[in-house]
Amino acid sequence: MAPRATEEERDTIIKTIREQGLDVNVSVGTERTVIGVIGPEEKIRRIPLEAFGGVENVMRVTKPYKRVSREFHPEPTVVTIGADRSDATPVKLGGGAFCVIAGPCSVESAEHIVECAKLVKRCGAHALRGGAYKPRTSPYSFQGHGEEGLKMLAAARAETGLPIVTEVMDPRNVELVAEYADVMQIGARNMQNFTLLKEVGQAKRPVLLKRGMSATVEDLLLAAEYILSEGNTKVILCERGIRTFEKAYRNTADLSAIPTVQELSHLPIIFDPSHALGRRRHIATLSCAGIAAGCDGLIIEVHPDPEHAASDGPQCLNEPEFSECIGRIRPYVELAGKVMR
Amino acid sequence: MAPRATEEERDTIIKTIREQGLDVNVSVGTERTVIGVIGPEEKIRRIPLEAFGGVENVMRVTKPYKRVSREFHPEPTVVTIGADRSDATPVKLGGGAFCVIAGPCSVESAEHIVECAKLVKRCGAHALRGGAYKPRTSPYSFQGHGEEGLKMLAAARAETGLPIVTEVMDPRNVELVAEYADVMQIGARNMQNFTLLKEVGQAKRPVLLKRGMSATVEDLLLAAEYILSEGNTKVILCERGIRTFEKAYRNTADLSAIPTVQELSHLPIIFDPSHALGRRRHIATLSCAGIAAGCDGLIIEVHPDPEHAASDGPQCLNEPEFSECIGRIRPYVELAGKVMR
Amino acid sequence: MAPRATEEERDTIIKTIREQGLDVNVSVGTERTVIGVIGPEEKIRRIPLEAFGGVENVMRVTKPYKRVSREFHPEPTVVTIGADRSDATPVKLGGGAFCVIAGPCSVESAEHIVECAKLVKRCGAHALRGGAYKPRTSPYSFQGHGEEGLKMLAAARAETGLPIVTEVMDPRNVELVAEYADVMQIGARNMQNFTLLKEVGQAKRPVLLKRGMSATVEDLLLAAEYILSEGNTKVILCERGIRTFEKAYRNTADLSAIPTVQELSHLPIIFDPSHALGRRRHIATLSCAGIAAGCDGLIIEVHPDPEHAASDGPQCLNEPEFSECIGRIRPYVELAGKVMR
Amino acid sequence: MAPRATEEERDTIIKTIREQGLDVNVSVGTERTVIGVIGPEEKIRRIPLEAFGGVENVMRVTKPYKRVSREFHPEPTVVTIGADRSDATPVKLGGGAFCVIAGPCSVESAEHIVECAKLVKRCGAHALRGGAYKPRTSPYSFQGHGEEGLKMLAAARAETGLPIVTEVMDPRNVELVAEYADVMQIGARNMQNFTLLKEVGQAKRPVLLKRGMSATVEDLLLAAEYILSEGNTKVILCERGIRTFEKAYRNTADLSAIPTVQELSHLPIIFDPSHALGRRRHIATLSCAGIAAGCDGLIIEVHPDPEHAASDGPQCLNEPEFSECIGRIRPYVELAGKVMR
Repeated sequence: MAPRATEEERDTIIKTIREQGLDVNVSVGTERTVIGVIGPEEKIRRIPLEAFGGVENVMRVTKPYKRVSREFHPEPTVVTIGADRSDATPVKLGGGAFCVIAGPCSVESAEHIVECAKLVKRCGAHALRGGAYKPRTSPYSFQGHGEEGLKMLAAARAETGLPIVTEVMDPRNVELVAEYADVMQIGARNMQNFTLLKEVGQAKRPVLLKRGMSATVEDLLLAAEYILSEGNTKVILCERGIRTFEKAYRNTADLSAIPTVQELSHLPIIFDPSHALGRRRHIATLSCAGIAAGCDGLIIEVHPDPEHAASDGPQCLNEPEFSECIGRIRPYVELAGKVMR
Repeated sequence: MAPRATEEERDTIIKTIREQGLDVNVSVGTERTVIGVIGPEEKIRRIPLEAFGGVENVMRVTKPYKRVSREFHPEPTVVTIGADRSDATPVKLGGGAFCVIAGPCSVESAEHIVECAKLVKRCGAHALRGGAYKPRTSPYSFQGHGEEGLKMLAAARAETGLPIVTEVMDPRNVELVAEYADVMQIGARNMQNFTLLKEVGQAKRPVLLKRGMSATVEDLLLAAEYILSEGNTKVILCERGIRTFEKAYRNTADLSAIPTVQELSHLPIIFDPSHALGRRRHIATLSCAGIAAGCDGLIIEVHPDPEHAASDGPQCLNEPEFSECIGRIRPYVELAGKVMR
Repeated sequence: MAPRATEEERDTIIKTIREQGLDVNVSVGTERTVIGVIGPEEKIRRIPLEAFGGVENVMRVTKPYKRVSREFHPEPTVVTIGADRSDATPVKLGGGAFCVIAGPCSVESAEHIVECAKLVKRCGAHALRGGAYKPRTSPYSFQGHGEEGLKMLAAARAETGLPIVTEVMDPRNVELVAEYADVMQIGARNMQNFTLLKEVGQAKRPVLLKRGMSATVEDLLLAAEYILSEGNTKVILCERGIRTFEKAYRNTADLSAIPTVQELSHLPIIFDPSHALGRRRHIATLSCAGIAAGCDGLIIEVHPDPEHAASDGPQCLNEPEFSECIGRIRPYVELAGKVMR
Repeated sequence: MAPRATEEERDTIIKTIREQGLDVNVSVGTERTVIGVIGPEEKIRRIPLEAFGGVENVMRVTKPYKRVSREFHPEPTVVTIGADRSDATPVKLGGGAFCVIAGPCSVESAEHIVECAKLVKRCGAHALRGGAYKPRTSPYSFQGHGEEGLKMLAAARAETGLPIVTEVMDPRNVELVAEYADVMQIGARNMQNFTLLKEVGQAKRPVLLKRGMSATVEDLLLAAEYILSEGNTKVILCERGIRTFEKAYRNTADLSAIPTVQELSHLPIIFDPSHALGRRRHIATLSCAGIAAGCDGLIIEVHPDPEHAASDGPQCLNEPEFSECIGRIRPYVELAGKVMR
């Protein structure tokens, strides 16, 4: 309560809290009185405490999420990618199993994506990424091949056995994407597209949920809670950099988020150095740092010919660069006590 | 080009640019060589210049948007809200016409929304806001009444003549929301939900597009460009605060964005002090500041009984507060040379 | 306490708190136990509560500043600028008295600063700003004329009667600057230069304290507390924009800080639109917005010939622009119920 | 130039540039004309190009720093700490030599700092940190023992051979601190205290320059340039986290800054996980990530009894934690190809 709060204001609040069947703990201090509200989160949430007269500040003591929390589920969640496909080689992610997802920003053509798949497999990747539906800042940029792109991805899987990770942007496409993809990606800009989160929460496929550009760790966990609350527990989180004032790189990789998420949640978390940096330089170095920070996998943009990529060329590694990157990360994965197939 | 770039690298780039039918201007400096690319934006965009060897940095000289820009359409756009409804009193927004949109965060019941509509009309508001579909950070918070809520809003319009502003979150609901609403709102979290932007771009109703929490002015204009590029030019932009390190208020109102948007674009822009502050205190003061900054309207959360609001209670004004707020803003609207009915 | 905290951990903390002569309030919740510490701030501060085993989070309920707070001193502080100089026309700032400080970024020459002083006086300014010591990001930029610059400023005062506002950067120069200046400015980069704050706290002249680029409102008030705690109560605060991801202007003007500071503190606060924007365009507009937000004055960069300014040319207004700006702000000052001489 | 710029405006600018003895390159595009200015940085800086009529935007192509840049000095700088003291065991930092600086936030007493020194030496640290002058956000927090603290640090060095790293805040104390300390630290809040930077630039001791809370990589390098431009080339940079909206940790560690600084500059850079996180948890993990990112050393807060530390207790490691941390980082140092004595 504010120092100038009246006794009447205090009593009104205490009465309202008790009417909701909640307990109250009142602590009278030298300058301020603190009213503690005790009871289930859902009930407390219903009272707009800040709106009452005399209230100076409301502080939340409990966590607002449940199913994603370590307290709810102490063991780490392990997600198997490509588990139920006859033509995919399944791979585990989380709980000590480390994996690398790689590929181009967008699917450019049938031949191109097969070439990419072979390239990343040759270098050691475990799954293929590639966009059929592309979220682009400008409406005039290439928006992806849509369903045709999904078919091209499936063909690349058939050819290499690599499970497919691809973005879904439209709730109307979730079923379609789930049919072709092994992991449905929710992009950073859609992290709080709650309609989409609920829809993938009802699907059977694993979901890769990227952290929004200005999302806190708590926002990320609450977005995952949307998916889990609909029944889908196969969620992989992804740190991909946040927006700050720094201009030397596109985003600021927030590696502290990795151990923090792992302390608070049982869900696996991977790191995307390509979007965090926004350029090729230092991708291998940041990948090593991400592994040392404890991430359960990496997602890296790779293109056979970045200078002719349809999108995100500047941040794509070419084959020699990606191969060198994989070579550099191996001992870090080992040192972190994780296993990379 | 980087100082250490080779002549070969330079020539490769120049050749590639020319192959796309673009012109080149080379400027050899004391330390660095600068290659200028001249031609239509769409063509230039296709070459991933940062991906070429020897490139140190790529700077864009032209603007990435077209239809939203002042250069494309010098006159200010005026949006009429509630134009084609027999039961609504239409109101203009933009080009000197100032209007106030007010109402509760969410539609709570049929009686409640009618009460709210009467309250805000009595105080001088020109349109009613209220959420039937609510984007909530937590899946366990109240998610809105959906279609029932839309019907309640329509009934409140029938009763008061106030046009309706309400959020649409799901592309599958755009048609439905357009049927009931006079303005379809795109929330801050969906500012880059491109699927939804395209869908409202094909609808006939005006769109209220809120700036994302970490969106730049350019991102906001590009999001609007998505809507205009689909054919809907009735777009109202909205500044509602961005995310910064400051903890004294929920978001940081960025009032410099208002004259900046008006310099770059012909679209009207309104200000939302309720979400910018996240609490009642100072809403009237910030409203006056927004008007002095040049905004074309305000959107304010008002509730007859904020202490019992279903959501956002702490930032809702009650009737005496809202009435006082309207009283305070009137002379500022006049001073800004705008007309408020 | 964390949900998994042991009873022993709880008891250790309670014992430690009591040993310091403080009271304890324990509230056992459904999931967590909350320990309240009651007593004087100074005593509580000495116990590093977060360092104890079993502690999940420490939340501060009281405010960390005292002398700058409204609770300590309810009446607004009014600072008189130029009060004790025979050659200055004193002017009040705060408590309803509004004033405009204007002038070039740096003192360029004796003739130049006199020309500037006459210009800003002619347009209606009440005090002259101008840097003799310049904090520059690069060591190779012009660093100011030093003591010679101070003498030139004094000569401009003698000629026009305008009190002088100038920056002090070095604690060894405080006495010297106080001899010539009417207000000693602490720049944004020195807001937490505690050595300098203590030094100006022991001087007699008023201090203009600019908010740091990433300082919270609380940081700003604590920096002012340093000055007041040394005995100098004549402190004017200044909002000049914070650092965010937005690139359309140099800094992001945070106008919500103005009513917030006024709610928490009795000190006057002025607004600097020149540094907030970093360019001439929209300075008059933002000035009006700042006044509507409640600021007690403005500080604006003005130069007779911005294209030949020694520093900060791009954000300087020339005479016609400044004159128009003053014309535009007058009715806003009046509307805000303030008096501008 | 803006699309609407006149030919006259263009000619005025070109004329002004040429008058300064600089070259001009004009590139006429489809929508805009670009004027390139060619010549030495110092000359270009003198023309406030943004202030000229018709200018839309000014982009800098060259870097604003010189002595700190790789281009100026391609080989990595190696700083020897404690080189010229009879009672110190010198240690190298940079160019492959990795070292750990550890100790309490502040020097609490003579016995205490000797105990700390022995503790960190026993665990494997190479230098002792400890504050005699403490920059505290609040004037009421413990401000350090001053010169007495410096003497206590010197005694701890005499006892253990560990070189001393301690902060200097006041330009008047630089000589005194240089007498006792082996490395003079400039704290984050003083990164742009140019008076202090110049003063340590004239001293002989190595300087540890911490990145400001909202400083860009370029700001950090320019601050270092101040020191080098005065003659002192023994500068160690330090990443310690920046301010963002994230609330789960005190600051956001920006590990991308490490390889970026090393690409742009020859100066060594160390990492401070204690201030980046603001709490004990995850310090060892982030240390490993920092090493993987390429840092040349670590600076860690260690206290024999964090629960009774005079300041920063929550982020201090105790002996078992620090010992375990050193054990965890060793293989990462090796893997990074660096040598830790």
